[in-house]
Amino acid sequence: MANYFTIRWENGRVVMIDQRLLPHTIRYNEYDTVDGIAEAIRTMVIRGAPAIGVAAAYGLALSAQQSPAKNQAGLIRDMRAAGEVLLAARPTAVNLAWAVDRILNRAARAEINSVEQLRVDIKAWADDLAKEDGETNRRMGEYGLSVVPQGAQIIHHCNTGTLATVDFGTALGVIRAAHESGRNVFVYVDETRPRLQGARLTAWELQQLGIPFAVITDSASGYFMRQGKVDLCLVGCDRVAANGDTANKIGTYNLALVAKAHHVPFYVVGPTSTIDIETKNGDDIPIEERSTDEVTHIGTAHITPDGAGAVNPAFDITPAHLISGIITEKGIVYPPYLKNLSKFFGSSPD
Amino acid sequence: MANYFTIRWENGRVVMIDQRLLPHTIRYNEYDTVDGIAEAIRTMVIRGAPAIGVAAAYGLALSAQQSPAKNQAGLIRDMRAAGEVLLAARPTAVNLAWAVDRILNRAARAEINSVEQLRVDIKAWADDLAKEDGETNRRMGEYGLSVVPQGAQIIHHCNTGTLATVDFGTALGVIRAAHESGRNVFVYVDETRPRLQGARLTAWELQQLGIPFAVITDSASGYFMRQGKVDLCLVGCDRVAANGDTANKIGTYNLALVAKAHHVPFYVVGPTSTIDIETKNGDDIPIEERSTDEVTHIGTAHITPDGAGAVNPAFDITPAHLISGIITEKGIVYPPYLKNLSKFFGSSPD
Repeated sequence: MANYFTIRWENGRVVMIDQRLLPHTIRYNEYDTVDGIAEAIRTMVIRGAPAIGVAAAYGLALSAQQSPAKNQAGLIRDMRAAGEVLLAARPTAVNLAWAVDRILNRAARAEINSVEQLRVDIKAWADDLAKEDGETNRRMGEYGLSVVPQGAQIIHHCNTGTLATVDFGTALGVIRAAHESGRNVFVYVDETRPRLQGARLTAWELQQLGIPFAVITDSASGYFMRQGKVDLCLVGCDRVAANGDTANKIGTYNLALVAKAHHVPFYVVGPTSTIDIETKNGDDIPIEERSTDEVTHIGTAHITPDGAGAVNPAFDITPAHLISGIITEKGIVYPPYLKNLSKFFGSSPD
Repeated sequence: MANYFTIRWENGRVVMIDQRLLPHTIRYNEYDTVDGIAEAIRTMVIRGAPAIGVAAAYGLALSAQQSPAKNQAGLIRDMRAAGEVLLAARPTAVNLAWAVDRILNRAARAEINSVEQLRVDIKAWADDLAKEDGETNRRMGEYGLSVVPQGAQIIHHCNTGTLATVDFGTALGVIRAAHESGRNVFVYVDETRPRLQGARLTAWELQQLGIPFAVITDSASGYFMRQGKVDLCLVGCDRVAANGDTANKIGTYNLALVAKAHHVPFYVVGPTSTIDIETKNGDDIPIEERSTDEVTHIGTAHITPDGAGAVNPAFDITPAHLISGIITEKGIVYPPYLKNLSKFFGSSPD
């Protein structure tokens, strides 16, 4: 177990490590309102598609506990309102909507004895979702082992570790599983401008796991690939469309293009909750534009001249044809994605 | 004329704007020793291939003035020693070696009346080199016009403006010429990690020229190209090999690959002094590795966790097949480069 945690329910409050302050300051924030949780998601106290899904689930649990509703319909109504607030926090990652829908659907379908019991159940469902996350990630790690050769040198973009999830991580989970299986992996850590999730968070997690790495600037990936130093790219995902097009942190698309040019395998790692079969292709995925301050400032330092404009798309779309495979907790999905992804959804109750 | 200057000889000293402090602090440093100039080049008080060529020329002029030599041979010997110090400052850009060779060869060939007159001449040759730079750049700007369509949206990497030269700039000179010809250009400014020459220097120069722009992270280029928002990429160069392979700021290669994938024209802009016909191809160009502090720190802020390693190649090689054309002061060179670049060197006295 890591000596830190991303998100936990403690005594009726949701506790999160403040990821904006890492790696140099470790601080946990407590939230006891839906608005507080939505703000934590929006400002990236917590980030990573699976982690914000769990945060949203706990947000709904808070709303259920605080709702004065006397019956199921009233409780659901209040929870739906809370769900809207949570969904508005970040538009791209589908896990947020997935978690909200899952809890709301279960609450709506539940045959209840008392509203009080339903409140307890809803909190338990959020706990389940958090617990499943670590198990899901460990399974992805096991499946992912098959694509990681002995001594692999891997480029990893953004952060996809415990901090992006509840436990173990997605793409970083595969790297961790490979490391723990004695594969002797080495990670080139894309720093991941503008928020530097690679330099700040992934480097910190790899350090604690004892996995050797070096931080590089995002634009240096081709330099290392051209020298034959990269065997594999592993990235997470915020939403995978039905055809395999994948939204992920800005820079993922450039990395995939550079990998393709060097015939370096490029794998996406994410739970099936990130696959959005309702979204036809990448063009239908909303891309969040964040404050230009993230580009013009680093920490408190103002980089650009006063008044200089910037553009700051938080995600990009990597088209399916650049993706070697999608590693999920149900197995690795290979092209053709439209056909092979839909297999996972034939029997799913959620 | 810009209301700032990159480098000037004033009263026996070499004055340079300190580019490490821009855009928020404008400070000029004065140097009166070869070691001081070499240190200014090494620490990037001055940077940009043409600019460091001129700095080296003035370094030689300083060494000539300070040499106690009583004859031509002694003066040349002292200048050669100074040349070695200057050449060691940065290995990749060939303009430094070109400027040193040009001054030394002229000094060695000169038929002199007195050593004192030779000292005066050497300083004048350095002045010539500085003066030619602005003229050369204006000619490149004129030639470059033919590749810039009306309303062009351009991605530009690193800084190639007046600050990278003595006046007008190379790739930014083409952008400036296009702007001044009423082409209504818009520039996506790659911030250019790790040293942020785009965010700090190019944004500042564009602002003063009144050319509209937005700063983007280096990894976002594909996002904008995929949206059809980019018509052209323009970059400078630190060394062009005989076959057209081009060394330039780290990230240039990734940008070229991303441009190729989107069929976006990718032009390199540089004076013929950057073409090194003696270097067969990109593999023979030495790539400077700079301190990892440039990656792990931004300004005074330590981004990465304590003890985290990094790798920091300052340049990369863009293979010739990704380059649409090379814009020089003698015209635009198109593939096949091996044949077409050599044409420029048949009649050159230098």
